[in-house]
Amino acid sequence: MPKIPVLEIFGPTIQGEGSVIGKKTMFVRTSGCDYRCSWCDSSFTWDGSAKEDIQLLEPEDIISTLDELAPNKYQHVTISGGNPALIKNIGPLVKALQERNIKTALETQGSKFQDWMTEIDDLTISPKPPSSGMKPNLPILDDVINKCNLESLSLKVVIFDDEDYNFAKMIHNRYPEVPFYLQVGNPYLDDTVDNHTERLLEKYEQLIDKVMNDTLNDIYVLPQLHTLLWSNKKGV
Amino acid sequence: MPKIPVLEIFGPTIQGEGSVIGKKTMFVRTSGCDYRCSWCDSSFTWDGSAKEDIQLLEPEDIISTLDELAPNKYQHVTISGGNPALIKNIGPLVKALQERNIKTALETQGSKFQDWMTEIDDLTISPKPPSSGMKPNLPILDDVINKCNLESLSLKVVIFDDEDYNFAKMIHNRYPEVPFYLQVGNPYLDDTVDNHTERLLEKYEQLIDKVMNDTLNDIYVLPQLHTLLWSNKKGV
Repeated sequence: MPKIPVLEIFGPTIQGEGSVIGKKTMFVRTSGCDYRCSWCDSSFTWDGSAKEDIQLLEPEDIISTLDELAPNKYQHVTISGGNPALIKNIGPLVKALQERNIKTALETQGSKFQDWMTEIDDLTISPKPPSSGMKPNLPILDDVINKCNLESLSLKVVIFDDEDYNFAKMIHNRYPEVPFYLQVGNPYLDDTVDNHTERLLEKYEQLIDKVMNDTLNDIYVLPQLHTLLWSNKKGV
Repeated sequence: MPKIPVLEIFGPTIQGEGSVIGKKTMFVRTSGCDYRCSWCDSSFTWDGSAKEDIQLLEPEDIISTLDELAPNKYQHVTISGGNPALIKNIGPLVKALQERNIKTALETQGSKFQDWMTEIDDLTISPKPPSSGMKPNLPILDDVINKCNLESLSLKVVIFDDEDYNFAKMIHNRYPEVPFYLQVGNPYLDDTVDNHTERLLEKYEQLIDKVMNDTLNDIYVLPQLHTLLWSNKKGV
């Protein structure tokens, strides 16, 4: 059985963002990313700093670890990265979880499609805005979104500045039928940030004000709950 | 055309809680409630203190006010209370909004059913736990839930203490097929509360801990975003 490169398995905790915000879930974080976002909050998945922590695991290994961490205490697993959509072999993990009646979520930037993505219950595609330093390939994004199940799909764009906001509007207009989430960016990635919650709520309020005064209407505006609660701490 | 008793119309703002948390929406708050929850955050809807502010409005009056407040800036209206399910005449308002391609949300405690509730896009039934001092009639709740559309329905229970938590588990077990939200209670209803955000996040974290260490798995745990942002301020 082909293996999956895994950097972290943790939980149960809440999903802090996006369409299933607040949901009790486990996290499986894969290593490797095709992007290098300037403000990535998980750069250890691609910058080599955690390369000795990568474990090559089979689905059954991953499920054993989940069961050890949370015996009878989970029914939902979020596969995160890095970009898990780079990994062809996630299909058998999703299938093994389905057989145990466990639902799955996935977050990816939309640069790559895998067949197993149609099996995910809560699929978030998060195209990266200009402040990331990345430039999404829109024809590829079109293709990825067309291949996904509309009923499990949502789009999320992180907003740091006005350029990001305009990018988000362009994305929302391009796929008006997909539920659309704006997420306030976290510019404070240090381990110890003074008044982090207060600063994030201030930025969140600014983003709300902007959206409320705009004609962008069929839209959600959310913070990251885990960051309000636990700042940048890992593994929660 | 029969009229609707309205206490507040405001927005656009975000929905601060429940299944459409973060959604850009307008609020229409009706007056009157069959409950007297000890910790009600909108007791002015039933305690007589705002009775001179009640306006009897037709659907077209309400829509005119919404249009004035937010010209081309809304596509979603939340009908709140009090208990709007006491009011037979909300049907024509929902219909008039639908004709304008505007979606609707409703929150009610599940003590009363109205035919127009099946037309609501995002329907939250929020049975009140023991700390409220109220005692939901479960056979009536069964009947209300059976008449609602499962695809638009979610359940939400506010949690202040362990008794509330046990009540929530009982409700979740009674209706396992309905998406289920726990919401951390706000015990600080004064206009000016020191460190309100910090205190609420502390309570929220305690509730998360409790759920993560329990076998209550298919569940969402959320705060009230508007209270984190704006404390107990009205009209936001």
